Amino acid sequence: MGNSLGKNLIITSFGESHGTHVGIVLDGFPSNFAIDFTQIQHELDRRKPGQSNLSSERKEDDIPIFVSGIFEGKTTGAPICILIENKNQNSQDYSELKNLYRPSHADKVYDQKYINRDYRGGGRSSARITAPWVAAGALAKQFLLKYYQINIQSVVNRVKHIGIEDVFMLSDWSNAQTNTIKCPDSMLALKMIELIDSAKIAGDTVGGTIATRISNCPIGIGEPVFDKLNADLSKAMFSINATKGIEFGDGFGGTYKYGSERNDAPDKNTNNEGGIIAGISNGNNIEFTTAFKPVSSIKITQRMENQSNEIINHQIQGRHDPCVLPRAIPIVESLSAIVILDHIFSNLKKHTKMTKI
Amino acid sequence: MGNSLGKNLIITSFGESHGTHVGIVLDGFPSNFAIDFTQIQHELDRRKPGQSNLSSERKEDDIPIFVSGIFEGKTTGAPICILIENKNQNSQDYSELKNLYRPSHADKVYDQKYINRDYRGGGRSSARITAPWVAAGALAKQFLLKYYQINIQSVVNRVKHIGIEDVFMLSDWSNAQTNTIKCPDSMLALKMIELIDSAKIAGDTVGGTIATRISNCPIGIGEPVFDKLNADLSKAMFSINATKGIEFGDGFGGTYKYGSERNDAPDKNTNNEGGIIAGISNGNNIEFTTAFKPVSSIKITQRMENQSNEIINHQIQGRHDPCVLPRAIPIVESLSAIVILDHIFSNLKKHTKMTKI
Amino acid sequence: MGNSLGKNLIITSFGESHGTHVGIVLDGFPSNFAIDFTQIQHELDRRKPGQSNLSSERKEDDIPIFVSGIFEGKTTGAPICILIENKNQNSQDYSELKNLYRPSHADKVYDQKYINRDYRGGGRSSARITAPWVAAGALAKQFLLKYYQINIQSVVNRVKHIGIEDVFMLSDWSNAQTNTIKCPDSMLALKMIELIDSAKIAGDTVGGTIATRISNCPIGIGEPVFDKLNADLSKAMFSINATKGIEFGDGFGGTYKYGSERNDAPDKNTNNEGGIIAGISNGNNIEFTTAFKPVSSIKITQRMENQSNEIINHQIQGRHDPCVLPRAIPIVESLSAIVILDHIFSNLKKHTKMTKI
Amino acid sequence: MGNSLGKNLIITSFGESHGTHVGIVLDGFPSNFAIDFTQIQHELDRRKPGQSNLSSERKEDDIPIFVSGIFEGKTTGAPICILIENKNQNSQDYSELKNLYRPSHADKVYDQKYINRDYRGGGRSSARITAPWVAAGALAKQFLLKYYQINIQSVVNRVKHIGIEDVFMLSDWSNAQTNTIKCPDSMLALKMIELIDSAKIAGDTVGGTIATRISNCPIGIGEPVFDKLNADLSKAMFSINATKGIEFGDGFGGTYKYGSERNDAPDKNTNNEGGIIAGISNGNNIEFTTAFKPVSSIKITQRMENQSNEIINHQIQGRHDPCVLPRAIPIVESLSAIVILDHIFSNLKKHTKMTKI
Repeated sequence: MGNSLGKNLIITSFGESHGTHVGIVLDGFPSNFAIDFTQIQHELDRRKPGQSNLSSERKEDDIPIFVSGIFEGKTTGAPICILIENKNQNSQDYSELKNLYRPSHADKVYDQKYINRDYRGGGRSSARITAPWVAAGALAKQFLLKYYQINIQSVVNRVKHIGIEDVFMLSDWSNAQTNTIKCPDSMLALKMIELIDSAKIAGDTVGGTIATRISNCPIGIGEPVFDKLNADLSKAMFSINATKGIEFGDGFGGTYKYGSERNDAPDKNTNNEGGIIAGISNGNNIEFTTAFKPVSSIKITQRMENQSNEIINHQIQGRHDPCVLPRAIPIVESLSAIVILDHIFSNLKKHTKMTKI
Repeated sequence: MGNSLGKNLIITSFGESHGTHVGIVLDGFPSNFAIDFTQIQHELDRRKPGQSNLSSERKEDDIPIFVSGIFEGKTTGAPICILIENKNQNSQDYSELKNLYRPSHADKVYDQKYINRDYRGGGRSSARITAPWVAAGALAKQFLLKYYQINIQSVVNRVKHIGIEDVFMLSDWSNAQTNTIKCPDSMLALKMIELIDSAKIAGDTVGGTIATRISNCPIGIGEPVFDKLNADLSKAMFSINATKGIEFGDGFGGTYKYGSERNDAPDKNTNNEGGIIAGISNGNNIEFTTAFKPVSSIKITQRMENQSNEIINHQIQGRHDPCVLPRAIPIVESLSAIVILDHIFSNLKKHTKMTKI
Repeated sequence: MGNSLGKNLIITSFGESHGTHVGIVLDGFPSNFAIDFTQIQHELDRRKPGQSNLSSERKEDDIPIFVSGIFEGKTTGAPICILIENKNQNSQDYSELKNLYRPSHADKVYDQKYINRDYRGGGRSSARITAPWVAAGALAKQFLLKYYQINIQSVVNRVKHIGIEDVFMLSDWSNAQTNTIKCPDSMLALKMIELIDSAKIAGDTVGGTIATRISNCPIGIGEPVFDKLNADLSKAMFSINATKGIEFGDGFGGTYKYGSERNDAPDKNTNNEGGIIAGISNGNNIEFTTAFKPVSSIKITQRMENQSNEIINHQIQGRHDPCVLPRAIPIVESLSAIVILDHIFSNLKKHTKMTKI
Repeated sequence: MGNSLGKNLIITSFGESHGTHVGIVLDGFPSNFAIDFTQIQHELDRRKPGQSNLSSERKEDDIPIFVSGIFEGKTTGAPICILIENKNQNSQDYSELKNLYRPSHADKVYDQKYINRDYRGGGRSSARITAPWVAAGALAKQFLLKYYQINIQSVVNRVKHIGIEDVFMLSDWSNAQTNTIKCPDSMLALKMIELIDSAKIAGDTVGGTIATRISNCPIGIGEPVFDKLNADLSKAMFSINATKGIEFGDGFGGTYKYGSERNDAPDKNTNNEGGIIAGISNGNNIEFTTAFKPVSSIKITQRMENQSNEIINHQIQGRHDPCVLPRAIPIVESLSAIVILDHIFSNLKKHTKMTKI
């Protein structure tokens, strides 16, 4: 269970790292929408491994196969199933993991919960299952941009201890497209890359934070009690295995201020609330920061438990990212787009007469 | 919409600050469970205003009225509706708010989203609506303790800049019951109270963080993709209006470490993952920290917008908490209990023959 | 579980026959809608017992208490909780049922499923719990009529063997308001009443069928696969305990025809599909027929099982309806209205910009 | 929307008649269950076209492709995606339908609702999309039989006017496997086949009824108010496009009886309630009858509307079933199995300690 997300725009995820395909079903997407297939491929390319020295060496084309819901290039209103082939599988890489539980990994809890674990490449817990999320998110992004002029952008604002002081004070994040770590400050980007490179050489990994800004979100999106917009964005972000924290606006930092300092006055140019008040968008940019732990898969000998409950020393093989942050960006953006579009559909003016799209 | 939470244990919240009652419907609670009514009242008393100098002066008895689902002191399996009367209403306090939008408050977005806003005491956005959540959470707590020996405890670990260095290193939090701020370090508690008192005198407010520990949670709770245990706890925590951030285990702090430092090795006594790996409980204590902003209602003249879009200077009247943290504790614990019990019900061994409770 | 119905308009039912109140929470109803309270009372009056010789002698005022979601006579967009007091309780009437299982009643399965059964008046299985459904349905009806000119009318078209040949051929059902059995054919109505009267004298009960017509439903309502409009109407109808069958359009009768006879040609004035094709409304009147079994509570000595698994002869006391059909009409209409409005909300044109209601 | 069904066992359907594949995602199926692949193929073979003279001439192998959720022949607890290739597509067959609306077909409402209709072979409204339902249902059947000894059997009890008087009085339905129409009365079967043959020659179609019996269903399955077991079975049955009616137990027939005649007394050998009282299984066989209209696709010239709103005479080409009843049997059984298993999972004893399967 727990493989679907959303109420009026629903994604259902399936697939494992070393099955034939990973996939998604997107239900609730409006009909008669002309799809920009190039943009979908572009988003998938941003996520796929092997793009730069910073990411895993697994090579995947990640070309989406559209199984259903599209006719003559346009959506039909039927559920859209998208498959992505797992080409560069290398099951031998993982045979060592059959009896071993990697530290801070899902291996052991999966065995305990399910018994019959597909251990190849992390199986269902692999980040590979997020590729179809990006394809579905790309569709949501297209729709949001076309009909609402909503733009969603995520950047890396900190790698380990190297970070931008207040990334939300920076209004222009376009520089993030010019470097492989996707940081809007080009000088810091170089330092981040240097740090990742040296971690990689040491067989180690680093984490950091991703900042997200959603502009032009209409006022009034989000439900006031249990389906708050921030609550649903938060739930979506924690769907990414490496996420360990999230904060909106000034978040944890804001708890160091007095109320009188922190309140967003109408003529003060602040956005401490991060664009969401009491669960509802207030017209400001929606801004949040997500904490990603350093990848648990390191190429350094570690203490590990095996299925016989022995603790041994072992060094994991396989192809892993020294830092997932740049590849996580399209995932964060995609889930954000899906949550925002779902909430927009849930908030449509309720006495509107139904008309064709 | 968005007034229900849960899949196999569902709460539906209703009511406003100045209606006759606030209430909840709890659906999915097992039948034939003998209720400890004293414990429910005890939990409600922990949340109610007027307990100490630190909280609002509004006086409420907060005695739960059980409308349905209970027969001869035991649950029947039918939905349990609980009402709590709003006694100490004082609508005049809020008449000033009819045309005014308080900074960092829901007033304006509610007007924009709903037009017909019940402005009295914040209406639906009032923290008063959490009282019935605590009553429902008390039932969940009783059940978790009786059948699973699960204990859920929250404490205040930081008020503004006064905080415990690493609250999860402290194994015994029982001291938190001995002071009004509910901090496990009694010396720090005094400093926190002093800080709150001076903020109160100044008409100001302070925020901070609440740490939560769930012990004895069975291994294997939580779904591996979109209904991860941390994702659902996070969503629940953001249902509290003042929440602006959450982190599990070492959270944001962990992003400053190398993977090699941070991984929870099987023979290292660490819990950096906070008891949840890839969305599934791993048998360690579940530990997370929630950031609460300073209360937006301050008794200091602020710049405010009114319904005519003028910005004026105004000082809000009314009875507000200088610091919500101690009263938020039973709310955090209650929502946690509801999420954990919901997930336990969703994870029952699937081929069990049905038997009576 | 299973006490909520709907996706974008959700009702949550609670309460038992002999608790203090029965109630409902209606979530998703648009804000700023001026409520016609007189119409709600009128609908409740159509359902309440003691209206005529045909129904139970239990006397209830059935005056709705609006706990939440309404401010200054208009909806606020917050969940609307409605309570109805159980005044004319008479628990002694039912003390005999504590250890007895009435034939074709829920008594035994409730005991087996829940152990702790509230046996007073049927508890949760009592038809009394439908009173708040009618109050919520009245709101849905008001909305449907005002914004979509949708009219929902149910009539009794057969009592036992006395029935109208083809009730859907009759375009004007207004006569049904002029007799206590609510049959559009006044002559048949007299015969039906006579039949019920003699059944009542014998301590017996009769069933029959209710025909429902929904006019002006927009084209395109209903989802094409699992949430078909007929599927959801059917599910709602089976929520009434006495319902044992349902058919749309020519239903079972249509299975006696050849395809060539039965197809609704565009220039033939037929509606064999009952206004729904492949789950979607086609602009014709939506027409369906619901079968209600004779009430299981009869005042005749029957063979009954008791809690000790003995089979004894017993005659049930209490106040029961010899024929529930006329009182079931507002329930059928209310559930229909809730389903239709829910589907309308689920089908709003998806790229509409959000605007105020 | 509306492409998913279930709460704790969820199927999500996707695909169109003339896309590359039709498919399903089955979520919530327990892990570590050894699959009998032969039985799945057997069930698919019962549904596939071209089996006998009674069904469509379209030829499909209907071999399921298991994309996910299975490892070494056993389920992993991850969602199971099953694809079935559309091999014998013949889009030209349907090009005539691009601008034509077949009577009593989804063509026109799809165009009105979605604009961009995939008209090839009925697109999303094709019965072809039920093939993967049967594959998923086969898994549910295996589980029900293995762990609960639950057996689900459907038979054709009436074709047009040729029917068995009371099929539920017949305890042994095994003869239904010996004839192509799947009727337990072999003599009637011959007459039914003769009737269908002559209808086929005339280019016409016939409908009828399917009777379903579920034996060994545990007592206590089904929720008492809105997710009643009969309500959910009914909703599932109406998911089949040709279904126009359903009745449980004596259904419509029971409305012709007095309560005193109809009540199921404990020592009377009757099952008028069809095994479900007030929404809950009572331990008797669950018995219901579903009405299937004659297939709307006939090979006789009909009056039809085209996209220009003209009414013309036209004869539809294509490969259609003169009678869908025998092929509908595995669909009815499959949906029944999915509903029953979903309800079993929703009714597990709630304080059970979690254990491995």
